[in-house]
Amino acid sequence: MASTWNRHHVLSLADFTPEEYDTVLQTAASFREVLSRRTKKVPTLQGQVVANLFFEPSTRTRSSFELAAKRLSADTLNFAASTSSLTKGETILDTAKTYLAMGTDMMVIRHREAGVPQAIADEMDRLGVRVGVLNAGDGQHEHPSQALLDLFTTCTLIDSDRPRLELLKDKKIAIVGDILHSRVARSNIWSLTASGAEVHLAAPPTLLPQLFADFTTNAPGKLFLHWQVEPALENADFVMTLRLQKERMTQHLLPSLREYHQRFGITRDRLRICQPDVKVLHPGPVNRGVEISSDLMDDPQFSLIQAQVTSGVAVRMALLYLMGSSKA
Amino acid sequence: MASTWNRHHVLSLADFTPEEYDTVLQTAASFREVLSRRTKKVPTLQGQVVANLFFEPSTRTRSSFELAAKRLSADTLNFAASTSSLTKGETILDTAKTYLAMGTDMMVIRHREAGVPQAIADEMDRLGVRVGVLNAGDGQHEHPSQALLDLFTTCTLIDSDRPRLELLKDKKIAIVGDILHSRVARSNIWSLTASGAEVHLAAPPTLLPQLFADFTTNAPGKLFLHWQVEPALENADFVMTLRLQKERMTQHLLPSLREYHQRFGITRDRLRICQPDVKVLHPGPVNRGVEISSDLMDDPQFSLIQAQVTSGVAVRMALLYLMGSSKA
Amino acid sequence: MASTWNRHHVLSLADFTPEEYDTVLQTAASFREVLSRRTKKVPTLQGQVVANLFFEPSTRTRSSFELAAKRLSADTLNFAASTSSLTKGETILDTAKTYLAMGTDMMVIRHREAGVPQAIADEMDRLGVRVGVLNAGDGQHEHPSQALLDLFTTCTLIDSDRPRLELLKDKKIAIVGDILHSRVARSNIWSLTASGAEVHLAAPPTLLPQLFADFTTNAPGKLFLHWQVEPALENADFVMTLRLQKERMTQHLLPSLREYHQRFGITRDRLRICQPDVKVLHPGPVNRGVEISSDLMDDPQFSLIQAQVTSGVAVRMALLYLMGSSKA
Repeated sequence: MASTWNRHHVLSLADFTPEEYDTVLQTAASFREVLSRRTKKVPTLQGQVVANLFFEPSTRTRSSFELAAKRLSADTLNFAASTSSLTKGETILDTAKTYLAMGTDMMVIRHREAGVPQAIADEMDRLGVRVGVLNAGDGQHEHPSQALLDLFTTCTLIDSDRPRLELLKDKKIAIVGDILHSRVARSNIWSLTASGAEVHLAAPPTLLPQLFADFTTNAPGKLFLHWQVEPALENADFVMTLRLQKERMTQHLLPSLREYHQRFGITRDRLRICQPDVKVLHPGPVNRGVEISSDLMDDPQFSLIQAQVTSGVAVRMALLYLMGSSKA
Repeated sequence: MASTWNRHHVLSLADFTPEEYDTVLQTAASFREVLSRRTKKVPTLQGQVVANLFFEPSTRTRSSFELAAKRLSADTLNFAASTSSLTKGETILDTAKTYLAMGTDMMVIRHREAGVPQAIADEMDRLGVRVGVLNAGDGQHEHPSQALLDLFTTCTLIDSDRPRLELLKDKKIAIVGDILHSRVARSNIWSLTASGAEVHLAAPPTLLPQLFADFTTNAPGKLFLHWQVEPALENADFVMTLRLQKERMTQHLLPSLREYHQRFGITRDRLRICQPDVKVLHPGPVNRGVEISSDLMDDPQFSLIQAQVTSGVAVRMALLYLMGSSKA
Repeated sequence: MASTWNRHHVLSLADFTPEEYDTVLQTAASFREVLSRRTKKVPTLQGQVVANLFFEPSTRTRSSFELAAKRLSADTLNFAASTSSLTKGETILDTAKTYLAMGTDMMVIRHREAGVPQAIADEMDRLGVRVGVLNAGDGQHEHPSQALLDLFTTCTLIDSDRPRLELLKDKKIAIVGDILHSRVARSNIWSLTASGAEVHLAAPPTLLPQLFADFTTNAPGKLFLHWQVEPALENADFVMTLRLQKERMTQHLLPSLREYHQRFGITRDRLRICQPDVKVLHPGPVNRGVEISSDLMDDPQFSLIQAQVTSGVAVRMALLYLMGSSKA
């Protein structure tokens, strides 16, 4: 299965091939089976060390990676920025090299600045060491494991036994919310357009500038921009909502949460123009009543939000497994 | 042993049956044996995940639960409120559901508001999932694992091989200190009156209002209230002291720590009117020289404080084991 | 191998014997071999508990100890001062006794006050319990595991297969920087003079008072003090740089970081008067361009800084192993 996999690092989906997407999806499907057992553990990474270097605080993503690593029997080291040597003036590369020298096999990195995981991966390559770096969210750049778990969640819904990229071909997928600042949206655009889906971005003009159209790729899928939500939702198969950071208000990019919800919040009412079996996703944590109405979030007919979290552990196990077995 | 056990959740001792108390005591006794070995570990919960969700900071109780889980070979996830999504506006139920979706088997929950563990347990039941919830302290409501470890500590002292509820029948037990705000006292009142003990509460009037008398139960034990410490201590077999929160002073509920110690602090002198073999307990952390004199705390003839901590790990192993094996 | 080892505690190097140094070096060498395997784990401490009690925040040292413990298959408990009961008024000894009562087998302790690990070790001995205490840095007193890893790093460079104390005999070793406040320097002075090396301390007068000369020991090595860096560097085999705390500036002990670097910063230029194969060490985290120039730090011809971090895990595994197997 891992024979088509040659990546030590997972930093961005921009250059992911269809084969790589399918390898992740199939590997995750096999790990999902492990997670349904009573003893949810395999010895794959026994004796290896996964360091979670979260320079930006996170509970959800860090716990998901920690659990994924533990279920592969790896040892984990958690680094939280608040108690770190950073306050002592050490550079980020020096921190990474310290974890390398301790014997870390894989690093999962989140940082508020775009490019930090890439810089650390470049340094590891320059040093000639076989340490994998996984981008767990860098600034407003990318969050590849989130997009891959979204892909796994949607593909699995269509074909649970054989999730694969082509299942999303010609599906219409709306991404609604603060596109401008969203690393989740950026990664999803790469994977969804690669699948051949029609991707419709919808946001207020301040959160989706015209110049975003430059983002289009040579991928088979198509990308559309809307300043209203309705054209994105019309006949959509999936609606991906994005988290709205409260600080957008103080930056004068939005008038109020209430007005945002009125114009872009996803409700049962708004979903009437979608496909009848439309599903809604959200990367979490959710501001109930802002990006999505509270009742819709809890409605198993529409919401995939819990399924996304479960997929997250399986997809992250797959990524750590594949990175660890890379022959590159 | 677990055949009499049908609880997924341990939220309160209010409805514990004598059989349930005895099951916990006997199971803890068998785990205490494991803890005396060099390799203090059993494979009981291998591959299962225990999430410690401590919305209120704690070192002692969290470490005790973490150790209990690890000694049952479970994987643990630690959530500390300070770095959580709570600051990002997620509700507590959504946080719990996220841990559920990741594959958590048991949740240990501490929260400053009474009722939070119950609300999470109700939600898990509503969703039809077999995830156990354990209340590790909720506001001023209950702290059942603390009362169970106190019970184990006292019963074990009387019959180390076969600790059981009836051993406390007709014993006189004084609970001294800030009864009003104490979740430890509330849980202990349920277990001690269930045993048939005579329970005497002693506190200044501001920390033990008359209306507390309503708390009495149909249990065989009896409950007495005192605004002086002496009538509670007279002929007592056990004296349970409670931690005094320093903020009670700023709330004008107490004149000073010194005056509190003079009137209610437990000293060797005060113990003279107790039974000759009286023992003193404290849930920790102790304010030396406030609730209890420093020399008394360190005197192995009287103090059970270290034994309580040791009992804590065994009792928490028992609770996690029983919850995990519940057929309910 | 451990037959010459009778220490439960590792608190200071002041009374270390040459045999003890050599036992640590040889044990670390055997663990270094484990660390080069794919499965970097041995079952030595299975079922035992190592508590990392870091009353002073630390990422690097805590991670190193945590990894060392995990690679010996111990369970670890991490205590961080910020979320501790200390804010609740508990004494440090009571905190340590709580971890003892939970069943901790070894305690790794860092504290901003000199003597705290010793006080806890004394209390454990007084209680008659077999719990090992390791000083992971106490105030400006000692940091023995750092000096031992420095020793292992330098000796290993000379004879990788059989690192031993005598290899440093007659070597010239410069220690440059804030000697006055450095626990790393204090521990290194014990081990290096024990080896028979010539130890040259160099610092500005405010950071190396004359009275430091009293520190000399009966050890075979010799200790020299310099207020300039050049006499220390001349013909040196090893240059140990020390971290400069930024707060020394506000204490008026130093004019500026820039002036410090000009007078005492280690650069390629300054190394020309050393032995041609001189090597540079730093305990980390490094202030690049202050204690050491940035290019020198990254130059594998001179820098042992990464090797020190790797040595750290092996040496700490050796210490935990030896303490655990002590017959004393």
